[in-house]
Amino acid sequence: MSAEFELIEKLRAALPASGGSVRLGSGDDAAITEPRGRTATSVDAIVEGVHFTRPAYSPEAIGHKALAAALSDLAAMGAEAGEAYVVLGLPADEGEEVTLGIAEGIGRLARATGTVVAGGDITRSPVLSVTVTVVGHEAPEIWLVSRAGARAGDVVAVTGELGGAAAALALLDGTAAAEPPSRAALLARQFAPDPRLAAGRALADAGATAMIDVSDGLGADAGHLAEASRGGIEIDMRAVPIQAGVTEVAGSAGAAHELAAGGGEDYELLAALPPASFEPAREAVERCGTNLTAIGIVTAGEGVVIRDGDKKIDPTGFDHRRAAG
Amino acid sequence: MSAEFELIEKLRAALPASGGSVRLGSGDDAAITEPRGRTATSVDAIVEGVHFTRPAYSPEAIGHKALAAALSDLAAMGAEAGEAYVVLGLPADEGEEVTLGIAEGIGRLARATGTVVAGGDITRSPVLSVTVTVVGHEAPEIWLVSRAGARAGDVVAVTGELGGAAAALALLDGTAAAEPPSRAALLARQFAPDPRLAAGRALADAGATAMIDVSDGLGADAGHLAEASRGGIEIDMRAVPIQAGVTEVAGSAGAAHELAAGGGEDYELLAALPPASFEPAREAVERCGTNLTAIGIVTAGEGVVIRDGDKKIDPTGFDHRRAAG
Repeated sequence: MSAEFELIEKLRAALPASGGSVRLGSGDDAAITEPRGRTATSVDAIVEGVHFTRPAYSPEAIGHKALAAALSDLAAMGAEAGEAYVVLGLPADEGEEVTLGIAEGIGRLARATGTVVAGGDITRSPVLSVTVTVVGHEAPEIWLVSRAGARAGDVVAVTGELGGAAAALALLDGTAAAEPPSRAALLARQFAPDPRLAAGRALADAGATAMIDVSDGLGADAGHLAEASRGGIEIDMRAVPIQAGVTEVAGSAGAAHELAAGGGEDYELLAALPPASFEPAREAVERCGTNLTAIGIVTAGEGVVIRDGDKKIDPTGFDHRRAAG
Repeated sequence: MSAEFELIEKLRAALPASGGSVRLGSGDDAAITEPRGRTATSVDAIVEGVHFTRPAYSPEAIGHKALAAALSDLAAMGAEAGEAYVVLGLPADEGEEVTLGIAEGIGRLARATGTVVAGGDITRSPVLSVTVTVVGHEAPEIWLVSRAGARAGDVVAVTGELGGAAAALALLDGTAAAEPPSRAALLARQFAPDPRLAAGRALADAGATAMIDVSDGLGADAGHLAEASRGGIEIDMRAVPIQAGVTEVAGSAGAAHELAAGGGEDYELLAALPPASFEPAREAVERCGTNLTAIGIVTAGEGVVIRDGDKKIDPTGFDHRRAAG
């Protein structure tokens, strides 16, 4: 037990543990926070053999990815990052370096995003897993945005570029190759995804009617947004920005579009905006260092239609976790 | 995927999903809540083979225990139960009955305690695990209590009775037996522990200077409280209420005291109180249907001393998870 408590002390040292709305951080029965308004809360778990493999993913990458996936949900609400609570499931024979490496990965992204790690737990587990609960706060004058407010006629827009995370899985399982500069950027999509927190707030502030993060895949996540908003979505794949190297990995432009439509884990934001709001939103997102591209429209129908020229893409045929599974 | 979404719909139906401070519940990127004041947040994970075994623990018991362990941390702060976020790690070959059974167990305790299940996730995992994040709220006029405020001269008191959860493990691994009425009550300590939320608020309201829940064991948890409060604690085991059947399971009164001192998982509350506050606190806790017993004192020293008559008990020698491990 004493070794466990020593380890927990080292972990606390690696993590930003106070600030923001936190009044009492890690180490008591519960953390105490004092939110100034509404909060957004989300949980995300990543499990070895399901969401990552070793040694391909370093302990730092595992920690980074677990926190990034959770923060991406807050980005999709237009929230500011607040607190994170981390549960580490640790096999009995796992070395301290792994635990501290995961904490380093979490700590670095937490600092970069202003997240306080206010609590957590280490439990024995037959496989390595990291479960992260994040609490975000409503920024002043920026209302939180759900998936449910899209209206027929809204522009559907996406931040950044898609397809990279799925292409990285193909690189990792050795079924494809890419030139070094593209390869590094593609792998970063898996090892160090960037939650679009600032872009999410910019979109919320610019009048986004609905948002979701692209974690399951463009087709699937557009489907979630359409269903919650009781509308339909039409997407033109030729308008979707594809990350450099994805076409090379996929083998053709058509295959790259399928990867981008079905691939998931890019952690970009998909938003619906009234047409007049698109251009101001694009400029605001650009000031956050990210692109915003119009890729489709909200319709009065239901479901998602993805067109690639004359062809329709079925994004559900692609298992984006095949390579890490 | 569609089967997954159907299952999630069934789960939502089994769980109390709205009310309290929840403005947008499960099903979006994040839940939205509107806390009225300070919040207490804690996470707890239970893993098959570590914290429970099957078939001894039914799916309902697994769900109940996971939520109860998390809520017990809120009880130890004197908070009101608010929201829970549940991550279920599910082996690929696991039947839907298991998932729904766990949800039933969570749902029943959530309803009984006024907890809203505002979000969650199901992830594939090689072993069954349930990770619960709970958020509690400060009740009107009742300040949250940490572990850190105990002062020399305070009375150390415990709710309910100890030793039952550890004795139940001995029953489960077949190394001991107990008469049916005691046996059922002992097993309930493992399968349906009762988080002392009302007693926790009563203690906070009565002026408790520090509180902790007895999850690691009386000796270990008294140690945490003493360390956080920078004092020492002396406990007289002859004053500690021992649950019926524990002496029978342990084989002698002395062995029962060791079980109660080292056993853990009883989820009773250990509190420090100014001497003048003890009697009003005892009456307030009794109105919640629970006993409060003075078992020791806070000293100006450090560490924990547990006396059983002339004998000192070392509570660290006992591994309370041996039977389920």
